[in-house]
Amino acid sequence: MAQALRVALAGLGTVGGGVIRVLDENRELIARRAGRPIEVVAVSARDRSKDRGVDLSRFAWVDDTAALAEADADVVVELIGGADGPALTLARRALSAGRHVVTANKAMLAHHGLELAAAAEASGAALKFEAAVAGGIPVIKGLREGAAANAIARVYGILNGTCNFILSKMEAEGRDFADVLAEAQALGYAEADPSFDIDGVDAAHKLSILASLAFGTAPAFAQVAASGIRHLLAADIAEAAALGYRVRLVGVAEADGAGLFQRVHAHLVRFDHPLAHVTGATNAVVAEGNFVGRLLFQGAGAGEGPTASAVVADLIDIARGEFGPPFAMPAAALTEAAAAPSGERRGRAYLRFAVADRVGVLAEIAAAMRDAGVSIESLIQRGALADGSVLVAIVTHEGPERCVAAALERLRGSQSLHGEPMWMHLLD
Amino acid sequence: MAQALRVALAGLGTVGGGVIRVLDENRELIARRAGRPIEVVAVSARDRSKDRGVDLSRFAWVDDTAALAEADADVVVELIGGADGPALTLARRALSAGRHVVTANKAMLAHHGLELAAAAEASGAALKFEAAVAGGIPVIKGLREGAAANAIARVYGILNGTCNFILSKMEAEGRDFADVLAEAQALGYAEADPSFDIDGVDAAHKLSILASLAFGTAPAFAQVAASGIRHLLAADIAEAAALGYRVRLVGVAEADGAGLFQRVHAHLVRFDHPLAHVTGATNAVVAEGNFVGRLLFQGAGAGEGPTASAVVADLIDIARGEFGPPFAMPAAALTEAAAAPSGERRGRAYLRFAVADRVGVLAEIAAAMRDAGVSIESLIQRGALADGSVLVAIVTHEGPERCVAAALERLRGSQSLHGEPMWMHLLD
Repeated sequence: MAQALRVALAGLGTVGGGVIRVLDENRELIARRAGRPIEVVAVSARDRSKDRGVDLSRFAWVDDTAALAEADADVVVELIGGADGPALTLARRALSAGRHVVTANKAMLAHHGLELAAAAEASGAALKFEAAVAGGIPVIKGLREGAAANAIARVYGILNGTCNFILSKMEAEGRDFADVLAEAQALGYAEADPSFDIDGVDAAHKLSILASLAFGTAPAFAQVAASGIRHLLAADIAEAAALGYRVRLVGVAEADGAGLFQRVHAHLVRFDHPLAHVTGATNAVVAEGNFVGRLLFQGAGAGEGPTASAVVADLIDIARGEFGPPFAMPAAALTEAAAAPSGERRGRAYLRFAVADRVGVLAEIAAAMRDAGVSIESLIQRGALADGSVLVAIVTHEGPERCVAAALERLRGSQSLHGEPMWMHLLD
Repeated sequence: MAQALRVALAGLGTVGGGVIRVLDENRELIARRAGRPIEVVAVSARDRSKDRGVDLSRFAWVDDTAALAEADADVVVELIGGADGPALTLARRALSAGRHVVTANKAMLAHHGLELAAAAEASGAALKFEAAVAGGIPVIKGLREGAAANAIARVYGILNGTCNFILSKMEAEGRDFADVLAEAQALGYAEADPSFDIDGVDAAHKLSILASLAFGTAPAFAQVAASGIRHLLAADIAEAAALGYRVRLVGVAEADGAGLFQRVHAHLVRFDHPLAHVTGATNAVVAEGNFVGRLLFQGAGAGEGPTASAVVADLIDIARGEFGPPFAMPAAALTEAAAAPSGERRGRAYLRFAVADRVGVLAEIAAAMRDAGVSIESLIQRGALADGSVLVAIVTHEGPERCVAAALERLRGSQSLHGEPMWMHLLD
């Protein structure tokens, strides 16, 4: 058997520990598949004394994480996290030293992916990041290779397990957002500061990477319009269900003549769409190609085992010598796409208002819709919410989003409205 | 840009024409992704004069298909079909001439995959076959690479689009098998001789390839126990629905201490399982890994565009130089697994009998179950079927399959039974 692939591992959190466990437990099988053993030789993390449940005494310990770039290894696995700082320093140094780099760091790739890909190409090294998007699901590979024969019109999916866990719970138990979030935090499914997840930033990082692979464009995270599920009510989920939909936080990227459109937003997903049946912390990604049609990839989007599985899959590709340009084509071939404006996009919208229980409010909303040119398909007004306000839920006919935006602008600051209106797009 | 990858194409049926169309229509994009153009240079098919809707005058025409193996090309794409004959001759000759081979030929791989893989390795050529299983879905890649870090406990899925199309129609319209089959044949969704599809042979070919990739075993098509949906009644689908299940033809492969178990069989799939929502000609494959958990791949399982998409994806991998051992590890490393017997497998079963409408029949069935040690969870007897017989549907408690087999053996030849009993396994 050929020489082992030697791995230097930076970051020994959940995923780092998982990588060691995968390589230990499936050692023989991985060597058969990779054509040679894969061996961790050096590790680095902040706290040497912490018990991680794996024997680290076998590995060289490197105090200075950045110095891992020059360790006697073939590959550096970066699991530190963070768009900049030590992770970026390590990745840059490793690639310029000709080391392959495997990373799960979506933020770093969203912000610096192009630079790192160019560095990898310059040194002939691999830069692989299957674990950065949708955990254990091989969707980077699915787009980069599996769907490579296709012009992709659209890629979209459920990219944040925390949000989907919360949405599924709200749906199953009829509970409100804040309540379920608190439980998710207590269970460790959501961070103490949950903003990255629930406001769509994490999904936006991932979406920008998928869009680059799908469309041959440079990652353009700054262009992603991201919002989350913070303002969602249990009542929204109930209204959606009555209409035959489920609520999902969906990242969508499309490329056409108008440019590149990228958005993370709460959507109403029709019950017969596969994404409507994705529950819990599961992720799912759909790619629509001009020959293959609709491809769906689904699985665990996070967690020690799945994420480590993706990291080790990348290591196996490297051990086999089966790798190439990180974003499917040379970095220089990626185009800079202009951001497509959302205003001319046509679709149906769900709008929900919590309003004061008094005469004339409905007329005010209806007038705003009419004056902005929004055509109403259905309108439901229901009795009091918990705070005494009344719920008004509207589904529009298909029309341009700029009209909906204009209607909401007309209503901004109205004394009749309690809190922010909820705007969701329909995914049919 | 580097030199073009030159392709010799054998077989100009639906998929062959599709490959030419994909390469034409997505020419520029494919060249960017592959790092170089991919160009068909020579073609061969039975009938030169047939109009295939694509301009073939650009390509060298080779009358002797086998001679395509030595055409001035880098890759031979084999789309002739058939386990043996011209397809096998061409593949052997091409590989021994050091040409890469891409094929969609599941039958040839199921029967001769090991020999061909060894030939490819000996000459350093690629042997790729993404299109052979589940059409456009990159599930070969998903198992060979995406899930490569995992010990796979089970791989299963909906592998035949024709059967799933028929089952979905029966389900949606309450019609009987023969009726829907005739319509599918008229529409071109089913062959004039549908046996390969509806008796599970096609799915068995595909399953044996998936099992090899999942478990590191040599393809063992002869060990697949295959049956189909020929004896299914509309009433079976209705009974399944009443129990919260849908009927799907599922190929299942499992490997454990007992050996390799492979079966294609009609299953009752619980409504909350992703496979229950796979309708029409769609395919879906689930792989269960010891770290990644459950991965699902879903998409179009057949048809010109999807199948051609998979063939061209293989060509792009070859153009990129990203390929290796066809069955994920060197052919010599694949083990010969013993066939695991089905008798000791534990599960729940659905059994349906069409019986004579007379006293004592139910007692006869119940006695056979009791005497064979089958514990009954539910039994439904319903009024007359179209032919005047009565339907008896049983769901068993979990137990070994040998008991169910023994019960059916006891009932064999009984004058009370009309036609073959239907035995389906429950997939929860």
